Amino acid sequence: MKILVLNSGSSSLKYQLIDAETEEVVAKGLAECVGVAQRQGRIIQETKRDGKVVFDAEMDCHDEAMTRVFALLTDPSKGVVQRVEEIVAIGHRVVHGGEKFVQPTLITDEVLAGVEKMSQLAPLHNPPNLDGIRACLRLMPGIPQVAVFDTAFHATIPDYAYMYALPYDYYTAFGVRRYGFHGTSHQYVTGIALEMLAKDGIEREASRIVTTHLGNGCSMAAVKGGRVVDTSMGLTPVEGLVMGTRSGDLDPAILVYLARRLEASVSDIDRIINKESGLQGLSGLSSDMRDVEEAAAKGHARSELALAVFCYRIRKYVGAYAAAMGGLDAIVFTAGIGENSPVVRERVCRGLGFLGVELDAKKNETERGHAVNLATPASRVRVLLIPTNEERMIARETMRVIAGLSAPAPRVTEP
Amino acid sequence: MKILVLNSGSSSLKYQLIDAETEEVVAKGLAECVGVAQRQGRIIQETKRDGKVVFDAEMDCHDEAMTRVFALLTDPSKGVVQRVEEIVAIGHRVVHGGEKFVQPTLITDEVLAGVEKMSQLAPLHNPPNLDGIRACLRLMPGIPQVAVFDTAFHATIPDYAYMYALPYDYYTAFGVRRYGFHGTSHQYVTGIALEMLAKDGIEREASRIVTTHLGNGCSMAAVKGGRVVDTSMGLTPVEGLVMGTRSGDLDPAILVYLARRLEASVSDIDRIINKESGLQGLSGLSSDMRDVEEAAAKGHARSELALAVFCYRIRKYVGAYAAAMGGLDAIVFTAGIGENSPVVRERVCRGLGFLGVELDAKKNETERGHAVNLATPASRVRVLLIPTNEERMIARETMRVIAGLSAPAPRVTEP
Repeated sequence: MKILVLNSGSSSLKYQLIDAETEEVVAKGLAECVGVAQRQGRIIQETKRDGKVVFDAEMDCHDEAMTRVFALLTDPSKGVVQRVEEIVAIGHRVVHGGEKFVQPTLITDEVLAGVEKMSQLAPLHNPPNLDGIRACLRLMPGIPQVAVFDTAFHATIPDYAYMYALPYDYYTAFGVRRYGFHGTSHQYVTGIALEMLAKDGIEREASRIVTTHLGNGCSMAAVKGGRVVDTSMGLTPVEGLVMGTRSGDLDPAILVYLARRLEASVSDIDRIINKESGLQGLSGLSSDMRDVEEAAAKGHARSELALAVFCYRIRKYVGAYAAAMGGLDAIVFTAGIGENSPVVRERVCRGLGFLGVELDAKKNETERGHAVNLATPASRVRVLLIPTNEERMIARETMRVIAGLSAPAPRVTEP
Repeated sequence: MKILVLNSGSSSLKYQLIDAETEEVVAKGLAECVGVAQRQGRIIQETKRDGKVVFDAEMDCHDEAMTRVFALLTDPSKGVVQRVEEIVAIGHRVVHGGEKFVQPTLITDEVLAGVEKMSQLAPLHNPPNLDGIRACLRLMPGIPQVAVFDTAFHATIPDYAYMYALPYDYYTAFGVRRYGFHGTSHQYVTGIALEMLAKDGIEREASRIVTTHLGNGCSMAAVKGGRVVDTSMGLTPVEGLVMGTRSGDLDPAILVYLARRLEASVSDIDRIINKESGLQGLSGLSSDMRDVEEAAAKGHARSELALAVFCYRIRKYVGAYAAAMGGLDAIVFTAGIGENSPVVRERVCRGLGFLGVELDAKKNETERGHAVNLATPASRVRVLLIPTNEERMIARETMRVIAGLSAPAPRVTEP
């Protein structure tokens, strides 16, 4: 029994084949340069038996890419699957579920139409997700498929936290509200954090956790009683923290000012805040935190500034979310930067002693690769390093749906 | 010895004549509908002797308005000033000082040119401020005039808090950074809060105060050791809290989305976030918190939502600023809503017990009109109601400048 997990991007297709019982990764791979005429497409696959193998492959579209991947996985000699029936379900990451899809959902024609409609809110993300789903429907028509939405874990956010102070009909007519993203990651690390808190006698319902997903995209969530009550990304994945090339929070009127001063078009503005800002814009050097940290350590002033702004913004959100939840039991760090940057974790926690945060400097430097508390024994608030695993979470959610166990989470009202 | 304090808006001119020694308000008034052809201009003046008196007056421009006001103040029979020389100085509120003017400044030709240049950053505010100054220069050429900048008190904000994560050259070439506004009000209430803290043995250098100016415009400041280290308004007065008709914080990409969905122009977007959002946009009823509170109490759902979003946003900033300062000694409420809405204060403080905030419900309901601590004796954090007085602050700053006592504040570096 295996679950195929798919994450289709605009020119790529990431996949993992996961054993449903052991959660072992049987094979994982990446098809890249899908539909990119100028560059050689290839599939990089990794299995226990063969290690990492690279195949050149022209792939004009996701359907062609999926055909290749399927052939690789089921190849009689080199494949990891003997019979197609071993794949009991396919789980797809779908970025935007809007207000309609607040749970992982079995894919039907109606669901496909719904996801298509949501493309207006995520024009760069939902269409390739749909391409991946359609390719699988054609190739593996009998296998149940499940859409796992990046927005779904945030569906419990109460209205006073998801509404923007804009004319109300932008919400009703155009769906303008906070949705949040990275939900699968926030959900996965929350599950582990809740287990760790339970060992200290803090039960789920009483728990107040801030989860901090710091990767190429960065977002935070306030998770109270196991349910998200606020998150930093909004209608789109631009809001909130400083990211590789995304600005995060801005005075919205800056865009009006720039449009006038630079005579910038809407597309220019869109490109600026998505592709030219963040660590890249501030440092002028790189969108990669590893480069920024290294340059800052060598005295590059704008990299030091980028690092300082990045960490300060996170620290403010920790305080804001503690206020939103009426207290704090744990801060979770996850994803590339969160799991691997002691410097970022230390700078975020600096000055949070008043909340009861006390980082163990040595643990923070040395621990890596497994779920661990980086706080001192005396610290009232745990500082948890928890490696994320979105694919495993998608596999679990997919299993849950095909087992018919889905139940809606209760909504939260203001305390 | 009297100080004339002027606040010139786009179609109005507010003034106060203040006794330099007693700080008593000798006269105060408002010239309205200046340069508005369609409506009858008038000057409403209030003095101790005559109470409130209304004069009809056509005023095509600020120069004409100022001429009328000057004539009223110095009228041989009805005026409050016997000789012009009694007015020893004129203090002007100037909205945007940019990075150039970080202190109240004696007005010279060079300063005028500098303020004019800053109009790019505040096209609606600085030009009328300049009109008021020029009118006074013509009418009272021998009297020293001082510009008191709304941005100046925030000049101590460190770079990691004032920089946006945008391409760096927008800062160097176009001045895109956080400036903050309402500085005179934040400064005034900070002064009183520091006196109140000193009585409890908390010295200025150790103090951590969040000031909350909630009027038609709303902003907050984190004041550590008497110096601002962060504030909620940014390049413009749109960022931050929910206001009467301004949106405050938004996912910046919402503007891109709306521009495309609504085919809205830059001017449309500017109007939407400045004039059609905030309490007005959410409630659909009013931009006035008194109306919103009343409707919410009667069960009007969108007014209740507007109130909830308004208070929740403030509560998050309290948490964020406590994190920015490493703790919290006092929250200050001031301006129209801050001084007069027990409901808003109560909802902001709800759930802040973990910070040591404990509001005295009875005091919160009954106290009004004077500086008072609304927290219980056991509360670790003071909740201070402090009526603001920007005109008095401008008069003081004006006196300080003409006495030659101006000294630059030290800059703050990250803790």
